[in-house]
Amino acid sequence: MNSYTDLNLPKISLKRIVVIGAGFAGLHFVKKIKGTQFQVVLIDKNNYHTFQPLLYQVATAGLEPDSIAHAVRTVFHNRKNFHFRYANVLEINQEEKSILTDLGAVSYDYLVIATGSKTNYYGNKNVEQNTFPMKSIPEALDLRSILLQNFEQALLTNDLEERQRLMNYVIVGGGPTGVELAGALAELKNHILPYDYPEIDVRRMNVHLVQSNDALLNGMSAKSSEQAKNYLEKEGVQLWFNTRVLDYDGKCVDTDNVDLEANTLIWAAGVMGATISGFNENQIIGNRYKVNDYNLVDESDCVFAIGDVACMMSEKYPKGHPMMAQPAIQQGKHLVKNIQLLTENKKPIPFSYKDKGSMATIGRNKAVVDLPNYHTSGFFAWFIWMFVHLISLVGFRNKAIALVNWIVQYMNYNKSVRLIIRPYKKE
Amino acid sequence: MNSYTDLNLPKISLKRIVVIGAGFAGLHFVKKIKGTQFQVVLIDKNNYHTFQPLLYQVATAGLEPDSIAHAVRTVFHNRKNFHFRYANVLEINQEEKSILTDLGAVSYDYLVIATGSKTNYYGNKNVEQNTFPMKSIPEALDLRSILLQNFEQALLTNDLEERQRLMNYVIVGGGPTGVELAGALAELKNHILPYDYPEIDVRRMNVHLVQSNDALLNGMSAKSSEQAKNYLEKEGVQLWFNTRVLDYDGKCVDTDNVDLEANTLIWAAGVMGATISGFNENQIIGNRYKVNDYNLVDESDCVFAIGDVACMMSEKYPKGHPMMAQPAIQQGKHLVKNIQLLTENKKPIPFSYKDKGSMATIGRNKAVVDLPNYHTSGFFAWFIWMFVHLISLVGFRNKAIALVNWIVQYMNYNKSVRLIIRPYKKE
Repeated sequence: MNSYTDLNLPKISLKRIVVIGAGFAGLHFVKKIKGTQFQVVLIDKNNYHTFQPLLYQVATAGLEPDSIAHAVRTVFHNRKNFHFRYANVLEINQEEKSILTDLGAVSYDYLVIATGSKTNYYGNKNVEQNTFPMKSIPEALDLRSILLQNFEQALLTNDLEERQRLMNYVIVGGGPTGVELAGALAELKNHILPYDYPEIDVRRMNVHLVQSNDALLNGMSAKSSEQAKNYLEKEGVQLWFNTRVLDYDGKCVDTDNVDLEANTLIWAAGVMGATISGFNENQIIGNRYKVNDYNLVDESDCVFAIGDVACMMSEKYPKGHPMMAQPAIQQGKHLVKNIQLLTENKKPIPFSYKDKGSMATIGRNKAVVDLPNYHTSGFFAWFIWMFVHLISLVGFRNKAIALVNWIVQYMNYNKSVRLIIRPYKKE
Repeated sequence: MNSYTDLNLPKISLKRIVVIGAGFAGLHFVKKIKGTQFQVVLIDKNNYHTFQPLLYQVATAGLEPDSIAHAVRTVFHNRKNFHFRYANVLEINQEEKSILTDLGAVSYDYLVIATGSKTNYYGNKNVEQNTFPMKSIPEALDLRSILLQNFEQALLTNDLEERQRLMNYVIVGGGPTGVELAGALAELKNHILPYDYPEIDVRRMNVHLVQSNDALLNGMSAKSSEQAKNYLEKEGVQLWFNTRVLDYDGKCVDTDNVDLEANTLIWAAGVMGATISGFNENQIIGNRYKVNDYNLVDESDCVFAIGDVACMMSEKYPKGHPMMAQPAIQQGKHLVKNIQLLTENKKPIPFSYKDKGSMATIGRNKAVVDLPNYHTSGFFAWFIWMFVHLISLVGFRNKAIALVNWIVQYMNYNKSVRLIIRPYKKE
């Protein structure tokens, strides 16, 4: 292991804030914090920020990674006293106020943990081994590769059962990721793959969406949930409500309701906080850091947690805020003010989450949008969805590239990045 | 190993043409051949066509793969009696008229070999092990990753020699690939990396270009060669003429002229025909298939070779045509006519290469262009270069995406795909 003292950071008189994670929370925190007051060190295991809400489009050949990824260093050009380190964090030592990374240790005055969430397999090892998660760009690219590889293989086999298994897709989890992915797969099935694979009867492809309770898009309005269900059924997605996956051997999905034969299972059934070791059990609740109203981790006076990995319990959110982009962005921005107040020995301001609404798209011209006092669906909702996601992408270039892709796809019903750049091989 | 009889192709009364390789030669052949006369089977190890002239832009963070790759199936939507097979060809059995692939065997009536070329290390195992080739998209992506990883690492080390080695790049080969890559690396050094890495003195980065004889861009005019030299020197590229690489251990490039310390060596020094086994020594010359004026391989009446892998000797080209896109495209198109004539028992027409000129770009506003009776350089040449490459890209979408990227890069002197999606790990 390499070991670089204090990650080769310059020693200056300002206090050092180390931020772990360049997701929504970390990125927005660093964007707002002033380099004149602190030395800011951002650490991430990738050299880019991932716009996770559009990962499913990378997986379904709609976008290339460059549309939804933005190099961290580019975002923070010309920032004073800002340092990015491309490293994996291994452990935190609260007593010594230092972090161990795979490149060596680094000390902090304030620590902001914004490590987000990771896929939750609920302890099921078979499921973990045999399913595709979709939380990172390489995972989305693997999914794209296997999707295309399956069809290349289905073309060749005369074993009809095997061919059917290659063309069956089971998505577990009826949240936004599962719903949007199911919609995109159905679109591939209905409008694109038949032209790519005239030798196969693509109508035989099945997209199954498995949901543990009785509605999709929990957390959105009942109208949206119902509308999403209608849209998916119209596109031919087979919905399985009140169904829990028990086991999966890579060929047959064993649930408490039905057995589904499929070589590909996409696991979008849950996430859990991506905590780092070095904390005691009072500081952690349900795989997230227990924080107070100021995002300060319990029993600490200098470690903060924001975004998915933070659990801030309140009357309205007794289990903490939903693990989504909006609370993360708002906590990131809000913490900047509180850290400034704390250093001035002033009283910090409690965080309060402003729900700006949520939305999901099911495919061409189909989406559901819940704003605080307004619900809409159909073409107009789809247009809002596009607009909001486009302006949320980081940087002018990413917006422009995504827009060109979407326009071309809209015009010719095609997704042109059906490329197997790195074939997926099971390890 | 899987084994699918005749790759599951439908049996029809038409004669079968199998084409190996979806590069320039194979793609243009298949585009023009009529599916009403033949059953056409295209085999490639990738599911996409690669526009190789722009690979260097993928390596230097200018473009994503989707701009220069086009899915084969998309190119041939709605083609009658056309079949694509995503497979690696292992061997050809001329007697049995069949091809062995990793998916099984397939028989042919006519065979068109368009496998192109691969990197030539001239038998030097150390060089092969320790250098980066740049003949495929995954290789270009690896190069992009290592380029960025080197800088992340240089930032951390206090070993000044190691840091310098991380920032030194040696490109071997002064052909178009070497020259364009050197220009792009110099541009990164001069205009982009200093903003990404304010902690490093990027001026210390060195780009060396090693050429075995005394001029760059052999095959282009003396004017272009000289102009390219001037451009590269102006950009700070260190040129080493009449210099041959003897050995490379991953840290120091040993040449017959100078020792260059560098952790990264890019090998663009030569290519060789990517022949497949199953041919006797009379059929092969200098790693290419020996073909007559009709691209028919010697001693065969049904195996053709086109493009880089074919060696058609003539008075003007005693060693065969240059291994470039133009001869490949022209041979691919020409062979269509000849195969039709042959099946009608008519006399085929000898191929004659029309040199449409060649060009290379060295960076922003800098290029050299040789047309048959015209030479130009500078901004106008650069504009021609852009235009020609843009219209040559396959498909409207790829053109649009590349154009948006180039415009954004031109406006803000930035290349925004500095993403390490899959970190490079030495195997």
